[in-house]
Amino acid sequence: MDIEKPSNKTAGKPIQCRAAIATAPGEPLVIDEVIVDPPNSHEVRVRIICTSLCHSDVTFWKMKDFPAVFPRILGHEAIGVVESVGENVDGVVEGDVVIPHFLADCTECVGCRSKKGNLCSAFPFKISPWMPRDQTSRFKDLRGETIHHFVSVSSFSEYTVLDIAHVVKVDPTVPPNRACLLSCGVSTGVGAAWRTANVEVGSTVVIFGLGSIGLAVAEGARLCGATRIIGVDVISEKFEIGKRFGVTEFVNSKNCGDKSVSQVLLSIYDLPLLTISIIIDMTDGGADYCFECVGLASLVQEAYACCRKGWGKTIVLGVDQPGSQLSLSSFEVLHSGKILMGSLFGGLKAKSDIPILLKRYMDKELELDKFVTHEMKFEEINSAFDLLIKGKCLRCVIWMGE
Amino acid sequence: MDIEKPSNKTAGKPIQCRAAIATAPGEPLVIDEVIVDPPNSHEVRVRIICTSLCHSDVTFWKMKDFPAVFPRILGHEAIGVVESVGENVDGVVEGDVVIPHFLADCTECVGCRSKKGNLCSAFPFKISPWMPRDQTSRFKDLRGETIHHFVSVSSFSEYTVLDIAHVVKVDPTVPPNRACLLSCGVSTGVGAAWRTANVEVGSTVVIFGLGSIGLAVAEGARLCGATRIIGVDVISEKFEIGKRFGVTEFVNSKNCGDKSVSQVLLSIYDLPLLTISIIIDMTDGGADYCFECVGLASLVQEAYACCRKGWGKTIVLGVDQPGSQLSLSSFEVLHSGKILMGSLFGGLKAKSDIPILLKRYMDKELELDKFVTHEMKFEEINSAFDLLIKGKCLRCVIWMGE
Repeated sequence: MDIEKPSNKTAGKPIQCRAAIATAPGEPLVIDEVIVDPPNSHEVRVRIICTSLCHSDVTFWKMKDFPAVFPRILGHEAIGVVESVGENVDGVVEGDVVIPHFLADCTECVGCRSKKGNLCSAFPFKISPWMPRDQTSRFKDLRGETIHHFVSVSSFSEYTVLDIAHVVKVDPTVPPNRACLLSCGVSTGVGAAWRTANVEVGSTVVIFGLGSIGLAVAEGARLCGATRIIGVDVISEKFEIGKRFGVTEFVNSKNCGDKSVSQVLLSIYDLPLLTISIIIDMTDGGADYCFECVGLASLVQEAYACCRKGWGKTIVLGVDQPGSQLSLSSFEVLHSGKILMGSLFGGLKAKSDIPILLKRYMDKELELDKFVTHEMKFEEINSAFDLLIKGKCLRCVIWMGE
Repeated sequence: MDIEKPSNKTAGKPIQCRAAIATAPGEPLVIDEVIVDPPNSHEVRVRIICTSLCHSDVTFWKMKDFPAVFPRILGHEAIGVVESVGENVDGVVEGDVVIPHFLADCTECVGCRSKKGNLCSAFPFKISPWMPRDQTSRFKDLRGETIHHFVSVSSFSEYTVLDIAHVVKVDPTVPPNRACLLSCGVSTGVGAAWRTANVEVGSTVVIFGLGSIGLAVAEGARLCGATRIIGVDVISEKFEIGKRFGVTEFVNSKNCGDKSVSQVLLSIYDLPLLTISIIIDMTDGGADYCFECVGLASLVQEAYACCRKGWGKTIVLGVDQPGSQLSLSSFEVLHSGKILMGSLFGGLKAKSDIPILLKRYMDKELELDKFVTHEMKFEEINSAFDLLIKGKCLRCVIWMGE
């Protein structure tokens, strides 16, 4: 086989480069040489400039059972430069700066053409170990053994192959260590407030869980003009962090005594309200929007209860354990006029919305800088995992180097 | 006490008239003389012209335990003429034709002023046995014993007292035996399609349960320009009826073999779809809108599963048993992009929306006539209950006479 070190003559040939390989559940990633095949039809090969670490990477790194699979190249927040393109690729050429996105945007199917949602019907979201179009891998080790993909991105590699449905061309002048955040986490949170919930000026927002995603929701709600942004978390220190992202008030749900955050017994049949929750009190009847950013069905129920009757929206962003069930009172669903909706990738259509968010960053509206708490070299990637697991960082940007 | 037979001199005095009284669970209503007090502040006393029978009347007539209460005057779909007004009543005078509505519209509170919902915060919906403002009754029998109200309407009486938050002045030229339908059932169904779901031109709608409410949803969806309206019921005869209301296709959920209507095993982690349901098949991926009009949490779950990923809306209209819980997969809520919402009184603001629907009836757009399958005299009210219970009628209009 004709394998080359990357150069400007690499198009059409396999590339040998370094990747951080997850070899077994919870074991440190191994940085090793891998072979990256050239892009097939509808694919591009991309040199990663920088990548950042997201909690889903940690989740699938730790996971022991299916859909976990090893060896695998994790990573799905990144930015890079197109090294070469396969056949049937329009709109992206060698040298373009691109952001990969785990949620497909083929722009052609009924889902992508609709203005009402952001789920591609041609390539529905799957935690697949393969490329989306032909269910094969572009990665192997030097012995020829297959290495698996992760959510159609696999950015913990100096080079990766992306389907054109999973990549958007962006303004090359945006600093890559900021732009890469829009590949997943910040977009998910900001988009949930902007696109999914469509937060209105002057409204009241409650955010359950002030991790990176919750803080990104706060940033999005702030951009949308929300007047009150109430953060709920069990760690009081999060309030100081939250303030920088627009959080105006804080509820420590651990300090609510034996009342849960929204222990509301509904006045179903003329029963009085037995307990008025803190949040219902604070918001004089409930919030306009509640965002669940933790991943607990029980907290979704809390969020739903904290919404204002008549129009309150509960937006689910957190990923719960497989098989978990969300239980709501049929009475409340019918009688409350509340709305429940999920938000995958913040309801964003990647190809049209990521450029808008990048422009808002360049216009100094969307504040990306404050999300980046750490930057390090590719060789230090296992330290980035440590920081994220210990809750020491929001976003750690990893520079791939050259 | 100065009690008079009604006349044009009755204002300010109690009126003696006939009412159909529910005296015990499931026992035939007793038509007897009652005393109707004059309206208090913010109230009007209304001579009922005609009333129609709705399933909720039957439910509370049969019910043995709280919030059932006896003796009670049921009835909540009606039209009448204002006989007299209490203090602090604006916008309605003696002689006005009015429609009562069980869901308050005070027009002044945060809920009523908002364009986003139709739930009054000043007078939230309750199955109360009293007038909403002072928690007392305006009805008693000739021995002076209290008779209870029903959802702030109690229209099975020649005269009733209504809070101004529960009454809308309407065009007096509309035939009363049609206009009265907008007091509850038809408005609920049509409004659910029009206001709650905001059904778009060309969309696909599935309606679970083709009773009066489901047929009213079909009528509303037809008015909104839905292209496909799929009715789901266990009685095949309903399809012929449904066709008159715009239903274009029918699924008899009894004939689906051992597949439930939407027995879909989700491709959560790259699992193939094991079974594609009939409706998912028919709609090439799911309906834009699913309406649950039966009142079964399990059917809400079916409806949710039958919605199109990305934007499908499930609208709950059916009233389930108290305490029933609706269970959804957390995974599906997050990943499907679907929306769940309840619709009380079809999301309508009674005071502004009932006149719009009446105009659409007069303009021959909204077809009310086909809902009226029976008309009878007040004395025959127990026959109307029989017809409704046996599924022999959609709407039976009862003329109160004079």
